[in-house]
Amino acid sequence: MIPNWLRQRAHLTPNRVALYDDTQVISFAELHERTVKRARQFVYLGVKKGDVVAVLMKNSVHMVEVIHALHYIGAIVLLQNVRLSVEEVKWQLEHSGARFVICDELFQDERAIQWNEFAQIGERDGEWQTMYNLDDVATIMYTSGTTGKPKGVMQTYGNHWWSAIGSVLNLGLRENDCWLAAVPFFHVSGLSILMRSVIYGIGVYIVPSFDAERINELIFQGKISMMSAVSTMVQQMVRELNKPYPPTFRCMLVGGGPVPQPLLQSCVRWNIPVYQTYGMTETASQVATLSPDARHKHGSAGKPLFHMHIRIEKEGKQLNANEAGEIVVKGPSVMKGYWQNEQETNAVLKDGWLYTGDIGYMDEEGFLYVLDRRSDLIISGGENVYPAEIEAVLLQHEAVKEAGVIGVPDERWGQVPFAFVVLGDQMTTEEQLRQFCMNKLAKYKVPKRIRFVNHLPRNAANKLMRHELKKWIEEA
Amino acid sequence: MIPNWLRQRAHLTPNRVALYDDTQVISFAELHERTVKRARQFVYLGVKKGDVVAVLMKNSVHMVEVIHALHYIGAIVLLQNVRLSVEEVKWQLEHSGARFVICDELFQDERAIQWNEFAQIGERDGEWQTMYNLDDVATIMYTSGTTGKPKGVMQTYGNHWWSAIGSVLNLGLRENDCWLAAVPFFHVSGLSILMRSVIYGIGVYIVPSFDAERINELIFQGKISMMSAVSTMVQQMVRELNKPYPPTFRCMLVGGGPVPQPLLQSCVRWNIPVYQTYGMTETASQVATLSPDARHKHGSAGKPLFHMHIRIEKEGKQLNANEAGEIVVKGPSVMKGYWQNEQETNAVLKDGWLYTGDIGYMDEEGFLYVLDRRSDLIISGGENVYPAEIEAVLLQHEAVKEAGVIGVPDERWGQVPFAFVVLGDQMTTEEQLRQFCMNKLAKYKVPKRIRFVNHLPRNAANKLMRHELKKWIEEA
Repeated sequence: MIPNWLRQRAHLTPNRVALYDDTQVISFAELHERTVKRARQFVYLGVKKGDVVAVLMKNSVHMVEVIHALHYIGAIVLLQNVRLSVEEVKWQLEHSGARFVICDELFQDERAIQWNEFAQIGERDGEWQTMYNLDDVATIMYTSGTTGKPKGVMQTYGNHWWSAIGSVLNLGLRENDCWLAAVPFFHVSGLSILMRSVIYGIGVYIVPSFDAERINELIFQGKISMMSAVSTMVQQMVRELNKPYPPTFRCMLVGGGPVPQPLLQSCVRWNIPVYQTYGMTETASQVATLSPDARHKHGSAGKPLFHMHIRIEKEGKQLNANEAGEIVVKGPSVMKGYWQNEQETNAVLKDGWLYTGDIGYMDEEGFLYVLDRRSDLIISGGENVYPAEIEAVLLQHEAVKEAGVIGVPDERWGQVPFAFVVLGDQMTTEEQLRQFCMNKLAKYKVPKRIRFVNHLPRNAANKLMRHELKKWIEEA
Repeated sequence: MIPNWLRQRAHLTPNRVALYDDTQVISFAELHERTVKRARQFVYLGVKKGDVVAVLMKNSVHMVEVIHALHYIGAIVLLQNVRLSVEEVKWQLEHSGARFVICDELFQDERAIQWNEFAQIGERDGEWQTMYNLDDVATIMYTSGTTGKPKGVMQTYGNHWWSAIGSVLNLGLRENDCWLAAVPFFHVSGLSILMRSVIYGIGVYIVPSFDAERINELIFQGKISMMSAVSTMVQQMVRELNKPYPPTFRCMLVGGGPVPQPLLQSCVRWNIPVYQTYGMTETASQVATLSPDARHKHGSAGKPLFHMHIRIEKEGKQLNANEAGEIVVKGPSVMKGYWQNEQETNAVLKDGWLYTGDIGYMDEEGFLYVLDRRSDLIISGGENVYPAEIEAVLLQHEAVKEAGVIGVPDERWGQVPFAFVVLGDQMTTEEQLRQFCMNKLAKYKVPKRIRFVNHLPRNAANKLMRHELKKWIEEA
């Protein structure tokens, strides 16, 4: 049990800035007041402790108010990706049992309340959580995973707390730190910025969208000291530069796979302190982070955060240094499990250890190298894309007999999905199939290319061998 | 469960400096190696997880090795004040059931092992705690309290962890921080420096004794960035100054009562960033800390650390702002209880709230003001001195019929104990009585003056009214 974070911040450091955007500067005291108003509105709607309420919004001050307000009540916040298809959003609402979904845009659903509408709702007195129980679920984020069926990752207050603490013990803390939020709050990389803000008492700078030039400007003005990004964002920011970053900017936390060597060299040249990191929704963000002074460990994701344990396993045995196997992690930021999905929870959580499905090794000094993201995970512009999910959609089309999806390199997005399809008796075109996917999947999941083939490579157990598909691409 | 702190540090930041003294610089990797050797020696002695082992040492690298080594095994470290009388030390050993006491000096006891002797002992393989269970007892420190009978405060790994985390969220963290240890490790103010060092990965500078000139030198050389002190130490350091402190020195954490206003003004003049703090053995150090930017709140101990809750109570009711009552605190750094003393534990710990016995109030903004330390506590040169304990010793003398002790102001030590004695049929002298105390009490507890009187002020219930004794002094 520790005090409600924002409330405690408003008490301890009321005048420090909590949020900036291009038009406002909001102190912790003011954010607390706004949050209480929103919480009173949720009480008016009948929201109670333990209810699930979904948020389908782009980063904004309002979104922050909504998230904190739900925590004041003790409701569980379901964070939804605004790029999901209507069908995907509804599936999550249904599965989670969400009572409402607060959204920026008009959304056709009896549970939906558009922000403009919510803002006008009445208020009613309620009882706020003055203490957070670290074991309570604070947020849910769905992730598709290997089976293609989305699983709701339950992140507790403790998960977020320990993640923030592990990070501060690695990156340090200065009173005037300000963290740029250019990654979405519906991803753990973005949400963790909000959590760190109220735990550390530092500012968050919210930008409406990723604009490399604008962000560079903020950095040169000394307005932000840290930011979270993926390689493609850093790439675009570097392209705009003609002078090195000022020393006020002290941390560029880069997730979603190793930073390419040429980009890393540019970062050194322009004085960009890159911290490469490995983490996932199931660990409430960072598991391991590589500090700039270990830059020579090219391709490594660094060492674990202080509160985390990492080991490499194969067939139940712990491997030695430099032997590749599954990355298994333990620590208090590991999720409580998947929402109402005991089977999938038990499949990955054993005795407190999380079986990530990712493949990697640790060198003699304990630096982690991630070789393959779990189940051929495709990371496209920072979004996780699971082949199995796309394959499942393709197989719903009456013309498709078999489907196999892999990620292929892309200059802009890092990777994009590429599909191989075996047709049955009926005919279809690449364009028709892509349109079919478009109706069912977020745009970034729709295969950029679909190739028709006579068969797919399968092993003796008839399991699709996606690494063979990769070879087909390379050979082509 | 989180990874063993020193071991994890040796893994994550092996080359950072863990300890400095005037002759050595020791990295975390080296401290880990030395600690493993000491742990192997303790295994050779037969020390097991859960055993109590006492440490009766002055601050030194060896003392640090011993403390960490015992934690590697999972033994409980009893930290003993080297200024205690032989009788006091033995009482603690007996009460705690300590198997050994490691001491700098020769100590006549079958459990005692002098450091020089210990250093020569053989080694044996053991199993180290790779994870710390936050609920396990890590250390015991005896504190005398109201009844005069010492109580062993059980501090868990979690207490130390949360104390360190609460502090970092208040004071921030820089990679090159180094904390001067001029207060003893057998007090929580000193021990908490060691804990922060391995949790944060920062250095500790150990000095053999408090030498104001030498410490100023270290500060001007930029070798230390933070230190813990009591007012009398700061007073002496200020006296030596002829130029302001450099900006590399960023925190002077001052406990043991408010810093006098004139001293505070000198600190402003000499650029000494004073953080006044309120804490106790039972809370593993800091509960509240006043930052320099709230200097206008003269006499305040500041606001609670992030993880702590403070309220003011009187007769079971929570008081409003500016009303004085008992200071009651809650949070994960509150002790587990008193060692084998359920009665005293239940007397102070209720529903997670610690009844400190200290009197104070909070102003409208939530700043804490401590009016009276518990049970007329005397703080002399940073040491806690309990009147009841001295009175109990005086009453053991055959000539003494009644005794009452209070603290009187002292330029050097802040306060010193002063005794009032009513004699019975026998006669004695002040000098004889002081000598009698000297044999039974640590020197700093021996009354500086003893005045013989005909009666002591008592209330209707025959309870000694120490505040009346204070008036006697003021009137004299």
